[in-house]
Amino acid sequence: MPSSGLSPDFQPDFAKSGGLVPVIAQCSRTLEVLMLAYMNQEAYDLTCSTGEAHYWSRSRASLWRKGERSGHVQKVLAMRLDCDNDTLLLLVDQAGGAACHTGRRSCFYRERKGGAVGFCSPLIFDPQEVYR
Amino acid sequence: MPSSGLSPDFQPDFAKSGGLVPVIAQCSRTLEVLMLAYMNQEAYDLTCSTGEAHYWSRSRASLWRKGERSGHVQKVLAMRLDCDNDTLLLLVDQAGGAACHTGRRSCFYRERKGGAVGFCSPLIFDPQEVYR
Repeated sequence: MPSSGLSPDFQPDFAKSGGLVPVIAQCSRTLEVLMLAYMNQEAYDLTCSTGEAHYWSRSRASLWRKGERSGHVQKVLAMRLDCDNDTLLLLVDQAGGAACHTGRRSCFYRERKGGAVGFCSPLIFDPQEVYR
Repeated sequence: MPSSGLSPDFQPDFAKSGGLVPVIAQCSRTLEVLMLAYMNQEAYDLTCSTGEAHYWSRSRASLWRKGERSGHVQKVLAMRLDCDNDTLLLLVDQAGGAACHTGRRSCFYRERKGGAVGFCSPLIFDPQEVYR
């Protein structure tokens, strides 16, 4: 997508961090932070061309279309880039209402606050049902 | 802070990613994502003991108390840990109302949406005034 001369640049710098940039996925409706994953250039290009979040799985060393097994895809409504071009933020519509493979809405489901540790994100699905 | 037997574990895994974990700072009030930085064990311990965000600056290769020059410290109200223990999320009260060294409220101030690129986070301070 070309930008006009009055628009800011929008070029993630994949080379800077060895080919991968961290990507925050945030629910566009509630603004909850759902997860953090990584993109390489190919995952970024696929995300831009399809409108659905694609990541690079570091543990599997492979391209990963979010939701390819669970159906819990992420429709990308907007992308934001940080000041030094090495982190992306996606505003997404999360299919199924949960981003985490544990079945919780957010991967950030454990919270430490005022000296206590507890759960802070609801369980939405049963992973044993979804990942058969 | 000790947790009871009924509480989940809360142990960031610094060894997994070469000593550093990415840390998302989110405004506790508006839920805007303000920035992403990195912590090592020492920065994490200092954040826990002082209640103010400390990071590891990769570019300067040094410990960094957020706001040490600008006064724009981050009071940490809660910390969240993701499902694989390698990313932290801080819910913060951002002094001065802006996290970015450019003077904008969020480091994620550029947005690509519907084919257009624009600015999406307001300018709060003049960096030439703050970083003399």
